[in-house]
Amino acid sequence: MRRLKATISYDGTHFSGYQVQPGERTVQLELEKVLSKMHKGEMVRVTASGRTDSKVHATGQVIHFDTNLTIPIDRYQRALNVQLPSDIRVLQVEEVPTDFHARFSVKGKRYRYIWSFKAVQSPFRRYYSVDTKGVKPDVEKMQEAAGFIIGTHDFSCFCAANTSVVDKVRTVYSLNFELHGEELHMVIEGNGFLYNMVRIIAGTLWEVGTGKREANNLNDVISSKDRGMAGKTAPPHGLYLEAVNY
Amino acid sequence: MRRLKATISYDGTHFSGYQVQPGERTVQLELEKVLSKMHKGEMVRVTASGRTDSKVHATGQVIHFDTNLTIPIDRYQRALNVQLPSDIRVLQVEEVPTDFHARFSVKGKRYRYIWSFKAVQSPFRRYYSVDTKGVKPDVEKMQEAAGFIIGTHDFSCFCAANTSVVDKVRTVYSLNFELHGEELHMVIEGNGFLYNMVRIIAGTLWEVGTGKREANNLNDVISSKDRGMAGKTAPPHGLYLEAVNY
Repeated sequence: MRRLKATISYDGTHFSGYQVQPGERTVQLELEKVLSKMHKGEMVRVTASGRTDSKVHATGQVIHFDTNLTIPIDRYQRALNVQLPSDIRVLQVEEVPTDFHARFSVKGKRYRYIWSFKAVQSPFRRYYSVDTKGVKPDVEKMQEAAGFIIGTHDFSCFCAANTSVVDKVRTVYSLNFELHGEELHMVIEGNGFLYNMVRIIAGTLWEVGTGKREANNLNDVISSKDRGMAGKTAPPHGLYLEAVNY
Repeated sequence: MRRLKATISYDGTHFSGYQVQPGERTVQLELEKVLSKMHKGEMVRVTASGRTDSKVHATGQVIHFDTNLTIPIDRYQRALNVQLPSDIRVLQVEEVPTDFHARFSVKGKRYRYIWSFKAVQSPFRRYYSVDTKGVKPDVEKMQEAAGFIIGTHDFSCFCAANTSVVDKVRTVYSLNFELHGEELHMVIEGNGFLYNMVRIIAGTLWEVGTGKREANNLNDVISSKDRGMAGKTAPPHGLYLEAVNY
């Protein structure tokens, strides 16, 4: 038995998220269907670095699975891509030690969040960036507010209420804004993220950028540990899981 | 009665082309539905610079229609965008003389054709560029072959067989290749294009770029006036109508 690690990209638009749910089209379901077919009907379980919600994209999600097939590693990528739907692509496959675990071995993750502030949204970006209806935020204020988030904190304020995780202390290594034409990208790296954490941070910093909240209010939000003090959860289709580090 | 000219963009993926066809979702149908609603049920006919095929995109298609509504021009754009589906956007609306005609007044058009030669196609580009499965063409040879196309010629060789157009002489002003990361763009401008002309040129030049045809073979292809001498029609989803000049 060998353990294989794969880096995958998917367009989240037409998926009910990553994780298998009865009756729904999910990324995990499509991966397991193809792998089980390759294994002559034997069920192959896929484990990801974490789930992503419906409409959330990935350019660097990582999964692992175990296989007893003897086909060469480099044939796996092509074999999977031939059979997978075109909204999931396998970017890389490598053999890893059997104690590697896509979720438990994670050291860090990087996410990207994209807003488009064109006066009229491009129809080609409608599923891939959040339309601000022409509103341009004050990026300097957003970057100033980000300074309160960087570091090690109890991030209860940025965690969706319906979670079972107990320890909500995480470390955000970096949180930067980049302008790409008429799009604003927020790039955030950390050792781990709570449920909806990136989208709640995006929604809260957006309120700072549009003058609805002061930058230094973030200090109070974090120390409150109260989800109610933070801003709205930003829409899912602006979010990309970009990289997972081990 | 005023005549309005509108510049529109659409993602062709989920349309059966531009032109109304019974039982099909088309761009013209969606535009006429919204305009007729704005005109209290009175049918409003929309005329475009030309039709585009199923899955072909537009970033600068031009249409005109007549209206007796007295609402200000700048309110039209917003009113249309609020009601149109998000895969069509109105970029600009302006009043024009009543002898302006979106099709008959055309002086020139610009199209773009996009190939992606990434080893593994990005799932985000699957409807917006043609996957060459990692094949990288010889762009210099394609540009050399393009030299035979630029100018005024009878372009029967690049015209789909099922056309009723009699005069097949057109002028191609420019035909250039641009590299954008791992994508190749072909940008072509001319005073008019025959049915499928850009896609047949793209398909033929691709054969030059991949060594299946010599660059100077284009000379024979054009003088033959024979569609059978040219290459395959390239897939629709790589094509964008980018600008129409009047």
